[in-house]
Amino acid sequence: MTPAGFTGSRLDRADAWRGDPERFAALLADPAARLLRLDGLDPLLEADGTLGWAPLPADPTPLAFLGMLDGAPRFAALGAVPPATRRTRGLEAALALMPPAEAATYAAARSLIDWHARHGFCANCSAVTAAIRAGWARSCPDCGAEHYPRTDPVVIMLAEHGTGDDARVLVGRQASWPPNRYSALAGFVEVGESIEEAVARELFEEAGVRAGDVRFVASQPWPFPSQLMIACIATVDDARLTLDANEIESALWVDRAGIAGALAESEGAPFLAPPPYAIAHTLFERWLAGA
Amino acid sequence: MTPAGFTGSRLDRADAWRGDPERFAALLADPAARLLRLDGLDPLLEADGTLGWAPLPADPTPLAFLGMLDGAPRFAALGAVPPATRRTRGLEAALALMPPAEAATYAAARSLIDWHARHGFCANCSAVTAAIRAGWARSCPDCGAEHYPRTDPVVIMLAEHGTGDDARVLVGRQASWPPNRYSALAGFVEVGESIEEAVARELFEEAGVRAGDVRFVASQPWPFPSQLMIACIATVDDARLTLDANEIESALWVDRAGIAGALAESEGAPFLAPPPYAIAHTLFERWLAGA
Ligand SMILES: [Zn+2]
Ligand SMILES: [Zn+2]
Repeated sequence: MTPAGFTGSRLDRADAWRGDPERFAALLADPAARLLRLDGLDPLLEADGTLGWAPLPADPTPLAFLGMLDGAPRFAALGAVPPATRRTRGLEAALALMPPAEAATYAAARSLIDWHARHGFCANCSAVTAAIRAGWARSCPDCGAEHYPRTDPVVIMLAEHGTGDDARVLVGRQASWPPNRYSALAGFVEVGESIEEAVARELFEEAGVRAGDVRFVASQPWPFPSQLMIACIATVDDARLTLDANEIESALWVDRAGIAGALAESEGAPFLAPPPYAIAHTLFERWLAGA
Repeated sequence: MTPAGFTGSRLDRADAWRGDPERFAALLADPAARLLRLDGLDPLLEADGTLGWAPLPADPTPLAFLGMLDGAPRFAALGAVPPATRRTRGLEAALALMPPAEAATYAAARSLIDWHARHGFCANCSAVTAAIRAGWARSCPDCGAEHYPRTDPVVIMLAEHGTGDDARVLVGRQASWPPNRYSALAGFVEVGESIEEAVARELFEEAGVRAGDVRFVASQPWPFPSQLMIACIATVDDARLTLDANEIESALWVDRAGIAGALAESEGAPFLAPPPYAIAHTLFERWLAGA
């Protein structure tokens, strides 16, 4: 079974150290300390697809302590980043190359850097904030508020109709996607909502189907900019669809052979599946395996 | 099986309407429209424990559209709220009285109001922002950023050692809690981390135990101020504990009889369980039921 995308980092976050400024200074002074090499927010990879690391810079750029890896403290530079959260072509190529554990380390760094770049002011009082806790929070000198990196939970789910060999799952596509790309439906979990409720709400809103039992399958981070993807399967009794044309251009019920064909990129597959680092891919795999 | 706390609201969020200002105006003008009655952030309940609702105010307080309930548009007033996110005594009493579905509606409103009150400025550029999308976002007139209510995913988990009648789960307590209160361990999911990874990290950091398989049990919102609680069980092979004294004052391995006694508040129960609206309570119940 393929691990979910952006999981399995070998980094030890050592987060208990973050609150200790002396420890942070010692980590920065360690000759073994290394900085993640980036071009904007994109990774600069070694020839084997692993992340590039450089000695720490001499200039006083604020750095975030990512954690320990192979006995060495690892840092990311916090600073201005391109405003776009769109994935570049260089990034798409890098994601296809990077071993999953490397992509996971990169994901944590990217989300953290991006959050700092877009949260330089206190949302509570407008003052300029400063990085604290080794780069894992920002504090406001005026009102005292502490602000922490944001992670937005998103549910991504397959509606499942029928059982055994008759089972089919629902995939949909947005108009902006590449031709014939379909995926699981998805949406943000809102305040005051459980995962199970968000799954049911999104399936009904987007496709007009009523969720019965909801089961969790897997989760992964998604660093564009910082979502927690929560993959579920929801049984439905009535397969009739009412699509929300603003969200879903087209939707299909697909059986096991169809999902297997899409994952294998077979000729004649009913649709083009998302890449392996997307949790929809994992969700399809796990469903075929009995999840 | 008791439903998880703060779930089961009868509110239809009708979120597809939020982006339509004409629809929002029509909902505000509906004579059936009602405002959630609050004292600060605490609910003002009817005698039967249900939420209180009042006609809309004449003054121009910004209102958020919560959704439709019993055919009537429901709103919450956005404005200054007490800075404390601590639960008051009045709130504790209300939580014990409110039917779960009412508590769920309240939770959504409370989290939304609290978020607006603490996010009046653009974190990207410091400008004063304004509520948009019927109160479900804020937009910045200067940089154009849109800001959405924040929901922080938290894992809350039982380490489980042994199987069948020998199975025991790990509960811990923080020094600030009421005497003999124990609960499941918990922690925020960080950027670049899956649910499963956060469970393993927190169990190791707080208790020194290594998680094997992690299984999802249930989720619920927690509106103090706005967490998504994700309850899991993680098998562990080695029950030896190394507690993080900064987080955990004491921890216990408890068998099924002990958990059942704590839930029943029996004399001689090994600890005092969290209240039914806390997902730790649900987690204990589901574990006893075979989850
Ligand atoms: Zn401030
Ligand atoms: Zn702005």
